[in-house]
Amino acid sequence: MHALALLNQPSRDAPPHAAGAPPFRLVDPDGLHLSVLDLGVTRGDGIFETISAGHGRPQALDAHLRRFAASASALELPIPDSQAWRDAILAVISELGDVPEAFVKTVYTRGIEGDGRPTGWVHGSHSPDLGRVRVDGVRVVTLDRGYRHDVATTSPWLLAGAKTLSYAVNRAVIREARRRDADDVIFVSSDGYILEGPTSTVLLRRGNVLMTPGTGLAILEGTTQGSIFGFAEANGYETGFELSTVEDLHTADAIWLVSSVRHAAPVTALDGVPVAIDRVMTVRINEFLQQRQE
Amino acid sequence: MHALALLNQPSRDAPPHAAGAPPFRLVDPDGLHLSVLDLGVTRGDGIFETISAGHGRPQALDAHLRRFAASASALELPIPDSQAWRDAILAVISELGDVPEAFVKTVYTRGIEGDGRPTGWVHGSHSPDLGRVRVDGVRVVTLDRGYRHDVATTSPWLLAGAKTLSYAVNRAVIREARRRDADDVIFVSSDGYILEGPTSTVLLRRGNVLMTPGTGLAILEGTTQGSIFGFAEANGYETGFELSTVEDLHTADAIWLVSSVRHAAPVTALDGVPVAIDRVMTVRINEFLQQRQE
Repeated sequence: MHALALLNQPSRDAPPHAAGAPPFRLVDPDGLHLSVLDLGVTRGDGIFETISAGHGRPQALDAHLRRFAASASALELPIPDSQAWRDAILAVISELGDVPEAFVKTVYTRGIEGDGRPTGWVHGSHSPDLGRVRVDGVRVVTLDRGYRHDVATTSPWLLAGAKTLSYAVNRAVIREARRRDADDVIFVSSDGYILEGPTSTVLLRRGNVLMTPGTGLAILEGTTQGSIFGFAEANGYETGFELSTVEDLHTADAIWLVSSVRHAAPVTALDGVPVAIDRVMTVRINEFLQQRQE
Repeated sequence: MHALALLNQPSRDAPPHAAGAPPFRLVDPDGLHLSVLDLGVTRGDGIFETISAGHGRPQALDAHLRRFAASASALELPIPDSQAWRDAILAVISELGDVPEAFVKTVYTRGIEGDGRPTGWVHGSHSPDLGRVRVDGVRVVTLDRGYRHDVATTSPWLLAGAKTLSYAVNRAVIREARRRDADDVIFVSSDGYILEGPTSTVLLRRGNVLMTPGTGLAILEGTTQGSIFGFAEANGYETGFELSTVEDLHTADAIWLVSSVRHAAPVTALDGVPVAIDRVMTVRINEFLQQRQE
């Protein structure tokens, strides 16, 4: 089961939704709706978000739309019309019906070169069964991302911290992980700091404190991590951002990779070394993520 | 005037061109031929080449097809069927007619997730008028690429040296160049070596020697640079590959950015400092590139 909405993007010279055009239209998700000339595919020149939905309600939608706008700004794309995107997201989720877990992906590209009009769509589908990975966890390897930790400040044109369509490396590292008998990856900066997963945020627990790699690290602001921090603080944990190394990971009490669709996957091994799982907290976090309505 | 051929990709389990399917079909280039679920657009997960054609003949086609296959290998895509691609390229160029300058772009993606079948197409069009830029040249700024020069050896999963669809950074640096009152960019490694342009190879002349940044630098093998080296050697120049710094650029006798469609654009300024143009050699290189038939 899947569904697709195409956003009607205003042309360069027209006001938004001129002539009363609706902000989006639902179309056959199995159809062909994209030109091979779209810069989204010829140059990976665009942005995306992946947003989970529980029983027909999007989760952390405001945080995702904020990050979507921040990515657009980093790529100097026209500011996305958040009301139009919100409406399209809700319409696609509605098409998917009242299921426990679904997700939508919003994609916004620079459109066809010279056309001056971006391309946008929302694609949604039911989530696969992720029950096992949330319990059994993932084996992780650390891999060099090649960039220093401060590259967002020194070299903003590298777009570190924007969620772009140029994710070939994020896919290649998963193949490298498989070669190393692992499932997922934690990126490490060229100067030795842990960053994020290719599609997730790293969380670590040290006693009563839940931490994630610090701000200013040229990584994505974690929408799921943001939700979890709110939940943890309401349940007596301290939370914080800090510069951490691979050595800090090895001495943590527990590690998770958290993301919108998979939620919290406990890390069971790091570069081949077993990592203890905090089963109780893993269950509590995943129950909270699945049930939240915001 | 433009034209488009869609490659018929074999499914995972079928032999190539099973059941006598033709290797490609010409379709309306203004049509919509791509799914929004194609990993080429959702993840920039694919590769491309841009190949020039003069009077209906592709230029440096073998070198481009070799590099295309090398990029596919780096991304662990199925090996492209070079005969099918060659046929499709020639058919598209033929559609464009006998014009002095045209170009085609070959794109090869991982296809729709789970489908196991890559997506491929060849799009061609007449070249814009590039006469001025080949004479008047380009103002260039140097920008940090963030990676060390040896990253292809230390961290092959970063795909440096593969021509992928994940080119959002290559587009962002052109916007940064514009902000700095320049037209184009030469990337510099985080440890200070000049690399390549976002869509070109750097050439520099020092007396009777024509040089390009060395091998092992995590940069693309230059197809146009390869043609020019052959021409230069036949005309009494020495050629070579070497590790060079921005300081080496400033003391060169002339600098060019060379690429398939624009050919050789002389660099007229580097980070705001005027650079001498070698007008005679620029004309000779561009005449050679335009007239070559190989």
